[in-house]
Amino acid sequence: MLEKYIKAARCEVDSDLVLKNASYVDVFTSQIRRGDIAIVDGKIVGIGSYKGIKEIDCTDLTVLPGYIDGHVHIESSQLSPEEFASLIVPRGTTTIIADPHEITNVCGMAGCEYIANASKSVPLDVKIQLPSCVPATPFETSGAILNGKDIEQNIGNDYIFGLGEFMNYPGVIYCDADVIQKLEAAHSHGKVIDGHAPAVYGNDLNAYLCGGITTDHECVTKEEIEEKISKGMYVHIRHGSSTQNLGNAKYITDGNMRRFLLCTDDRHAADLKEKGHLDDALRRLVAEGLNPVTAVICATLNAAECYNLKWKGAIAPFYTADLVIVGDMSQFNAKYVIKDGKIVAKDGAPLFDTSKRYLPENVLNTVHLGELSENCFKLTLKGKKAKAMTIEPGGVVTGCEIVEVESRDGDVVLEGTDLLKLTVVERHKMTGNIGKALFKGYGFKGGAMGITIAHDSHNIILLGDDNKSMVKACAKLKEIGGGMVIVDKNSGEVHSLTLDIAGLMSSRDADGLQRDSRALIERAHSMGVKRDYEAFMSLAFLSLAVIPKLKITDAGLFDVEKFSFTDINA
Amino acid sequence: MLEKYIKAARCEVDSDLVLKNASYVDVFTSQIRRGDIAIVDGKIVGIGSYKGIKEIDCTDLTVLPGYIDGHVHIESSQLSPEEFASLIVPRGTTTIIADPHEITNVCGMAGCEYIANASKSVPLDVKIQLPSCVPATPFETSGAILNGKDIEQNIGNDYIFGLGEFMNYPGVIYCDADVIQKLEAAHSHGKVIDGHAPAVYGNDLNAYLCGGITTDHECVTKEEIEEKISKGMYVHIRHGSSTQNLGNAKYITDGNMRRFLLCTDDRHAADLKEKGHLDDALRRLVAEGLNPVTAVICATLNAAECYNLKWKGAIAPFYTADLVIVGDMSQFNAKYVIKDGKIVAKDGAPLFDTSKRYLPENVLNTVHLGELSENCFKLTLKGKKAKAMTIEPGGVVTGCEIVEVESRDGDVVLEGTDLLKLTVVERHKMTGNIGKALFKGYGFKGGAMGITIAHDSHNIILLGDDNKSMVKACAKLKEIGGGMVIVDKNSGEVHSLTLDIAGLMSSRDADGLQRDSRALIERAHSMGVKRDYEAFMSLAFLSLAVIPKLKITDAGLFDVEKFSFTDINA
Repeated sequence: MLEKYIKAARCEVDSDLVLKNASYVDVFTSQIRRGDIAIVDGKIVGIGSYKGIKEIDCTDLTVLPGYIDGHVHIESSQLSPEEFASLIVPRGTTTIIADPHEITNVCGMAGCEYIANASKSVPLDVKIQLPSCVPATPFETSGAILNGKDIEQNIGNDYIFGLGEFMNYPGVIYCDADVIQKLEAAHSHGKVIDGHAPAVYGNDLNAYLCGGITTDHECVTKEEIEEKISKGMYVHIRHGSSTQNLGNAKYITDGNMRRFLLCTDDRHAADLKEKGHLDDALRRLVAEGLNPVTAVICATLNAAECYNLKWKGAIAPFYTADLVIVGDMSQFNAKYVIKDGKIVAKDGAPLFDTSKRYLPENVLNTVHLGELSENCFKLTLKGKKAKAMTIEPGGVVTGCEIVEVESRDGDVVLEGTDLLKLTVVERHKMTGNIGKALFKGYGFKGGAMGITIAHDSHNIILLGDDNKSMVKACAKLKEIGGGMVIVDKNSGEVHSLTLDIAGLMSSRDADGLQRDSRALIERAHSMGVKRDYEAFMSLAFLSLAVIPKLKITDAGLFDVEKFSFTDINA
Repeated sequence: MLEKYIKAARCEVDSDLVLKNASYVDVFTSQIRRGDIAIVDGKIVGIGSYKGIKEIDCTDLTVLPGYIDGHVHIESSQLSPEEFASLIVPRGTTTIIADPHEITNVCGMAGCEYIANASKSVPLDVKIQLPSCVPATPFETSGAILNGKDIEQNIGNDYIFGLGEFMNYPGVIYCDADVIQKLEAAHSHGKVIDGHAPAVYGNDLNAYLCGGITTDHECVTKEEIEEKISKGMYVHIRHGSSTQNLGNAKYITDGNMRRFLLCTDDRHAADLKEKGHLDDALRRLVAEGLNPVTAVICATLNAAECYNLKWKGAIAPFYTADLVIVGDMSQFNAKYVIKDGKIVAKDGAPLFDTSKRYLPENVLNTVHLGELSENCFKLTLKGKKAKAMTIEPGGVVTGCEIVEVESRDGDVVLEGTDLLKLTVVERHKMTGNIGKALFKGYGFKGGAMGITIAHDSHNIILLGDDNKSMVKACAKLKEIGGGMVIVDKNSGEVHSLTLDIAGLMSSRDADGLQRDSRALIERAHSMGVKRDYEAFMSLAFLSLAVIPKLKITDAGLFDVEKFSFTDINA
């Protein structure tokens, strides 16, 4: 094998593909250089003057190493890995560090395996981080639990790259035995451990790092970045759909530059489609004044070093020929994307087939519900005063308001109020758990709407003002195997969107999914959901019992500030 | 285990050792910071405010990560690994990438194993690179041959870190099958491969790098450095006894800084003792204007990254507590050296015992000679004109001069000339091979002198003007198991210095060895060796058939420029 590379490097034979007369970013010296880039059997064999069996004239183009997304949950796109790849590879991303935290909460290790296997058919290197915190909190029923022993049993699997973001930082700091077991398992296999430690400083940060944790993508301030880098962490600059911190790039200096990476974490299909992936991050970073070569180094070499991806992240002999050819380094429009030496995308379109999708039984039909009746959705209060959840427009932060509400037949009367019932219906273990709350100010009227995406355990978030419609909504979600649903009590119509893969992702193509998704969202607004909110996705975070102030899980109403369940009766 | 670190990090328990109020180099941000550095069970657990069971007041001191020597042949010190460690650890070096090329040429894999095992008792991490080029050339008889198959069989050994400097760059470039087998074996085990490619550029460099080779320590010019770094190599700045390129540090820029390492390659005991090791390199680099923090980063983090030494090369939580505490960053005088959390040296003196040395039989008594007679050393010429080797003062470069010489009884007559017989006596396989040459201008008279260090196969380099003395010298070298010898034909006295380990290194302590070595060298000069030369060590390179112009091996006289053996008769 080496012989073939060496002979081509010396021009004894023509190379498979030569990028003629290319400008390229030399990430090792932070320079832009020029030369022919010769590729053989998936590897760069030389830069100089070369002849290729196939050649691309790059006289007016710039070649960059393929981008590496340092931390991403594919599930947030609601797309299959194949379809996800068809959106991001044409943008120039050739490697991702994927943490299948969401699907693993639903399906357990089968979720991890699915992401790994589904990714095999696409020209994208998908490194699977074993989710470290399944479930994310003990306050809800998840589809799976990965305890220390489970991590021990699975972390050594060949298809597992490392241990995913360790969100349970109190568990590390306070030496929870199960947490320690997980961390030690990862170390015993020499695997990298991603971090997640918002606003952890000083001795607590030292303690967290003594878990052997390497990265953070939650930095907010200059001081936080400086401390974390200084203490050995790599810091991801994040370009998600909701959560972004591109502004952190202004803290990059010559002295700390090698410790910054890029990631997207959670990015919706619409953003991937319309704005892009890491190419969009690069575009914005450069627009905001970051040196384009530095930006590229963060997206390539730095990530390769952080994750010890050998022979990746650079344009040099023997390096993997994962390359992006862009028009310029302000727009980063990818003319060609090359993966393992093959042209896999051109002018933003994939050249690979994703029509045949891997779809194993064990990630389908994941909505497990027993018989539900209207009585199940009755909300019985002790008196007239109760706590109601509110939600800040646009965000995931919720509030708590004391409201007065009438009751009749052991159920609240919502007519004439700005209140809805907000429930979390357990959908994994058929426990019959339904957490119930009052929800104020969302605007929806005349039926029910629900979704099987509910961070992080992904039960059903279901709201409504009519118990019959709520039962119907659940039945529909069970029937379609998960997704989103709206029931109109007046017309009796049921409208839905299927997310057949674990109730989180669709096996369809992005275009069809988006079209139908937009229609359903529009219907929700037409039934009153205020346009301040993302009709369905704002719901998906109402169960995330780590973000203030009041959340709802299948086990009840949760006061995040007190970190305990709370009585709805005020 | 993690629990213990974490609890100490949070000050729930006192740390084992705290470096109080220390200035320290933060290699991740290129800053000097201040804090207490807390150490538990060999790891740094935190930087901040800490209390220790033991504390060192570092108010006026600066703490650096322990230095990493990226490429060194321990054998060049003529010391055992234990004694070598006793000299370099107190200077601040805590990890070395050791290539036991010399001893492996003599003893084969037993040489590698010896270096690995002997290093176990000292507080120095010795990463063993399996020598890739044994023998270095096919033009001499070595004690061992490691062919492709041997490399395949041994590269996967636990104690083998990687593949040593690949000096046979023509073998790579021209795809020698045995060479390819060696490289592929290293790759198949995921091992790093060190390079050695002086003045290899352009497509040849591309081809060399297509062997998957990572480093180079032979750079001379700015252009060479720039091309090599740009093509993915790490470049060692070398501070050997003879070969130095500290001046290359002036080509360090913010953009390429992370690709520079420090190494010593070959450094004599006297230099280690009197000038130092990497501390001396740092001192000189800073004196020549390199930013001290940059210099430290090259000696620490960069090397750790290049060789993927996890949790080494930095001062941060969870990193290995390999530390040097210096007075300042101009002199780099090590007040304390800490290895795996333990104070192992103070004020330049080791605190560890090296008196019990590992000394296996298979590296001793390595001088294998059959019966030798005076006739063996007769040099029979066809006529009066012959080629004579000359040697440039101070260097290893030799010349060729045509001389006129009389013969008598089938032997040259040296009386009244400036000529000596220079021979290489094969000492591994008892082949009886003796390569013979004329040697002009060295100055020695009246007997014989010889040494069992003869790069790279380490036969006996023996010169003299009296055949009887030459026989006697060989007998003495055999008796002592290798080393250096002088025979005075007039007095009949034999003076020697024992290098009992493979004929290359002494099992004694450095002081005694140096004292006796100086005395023997002085004796050589008193017998006429010109002071332009290092009496013995200048001889050791006369067999190195890759350095111009004329060399001598046990197989005969070799014209390096023609790259073939040559007739002594002119």
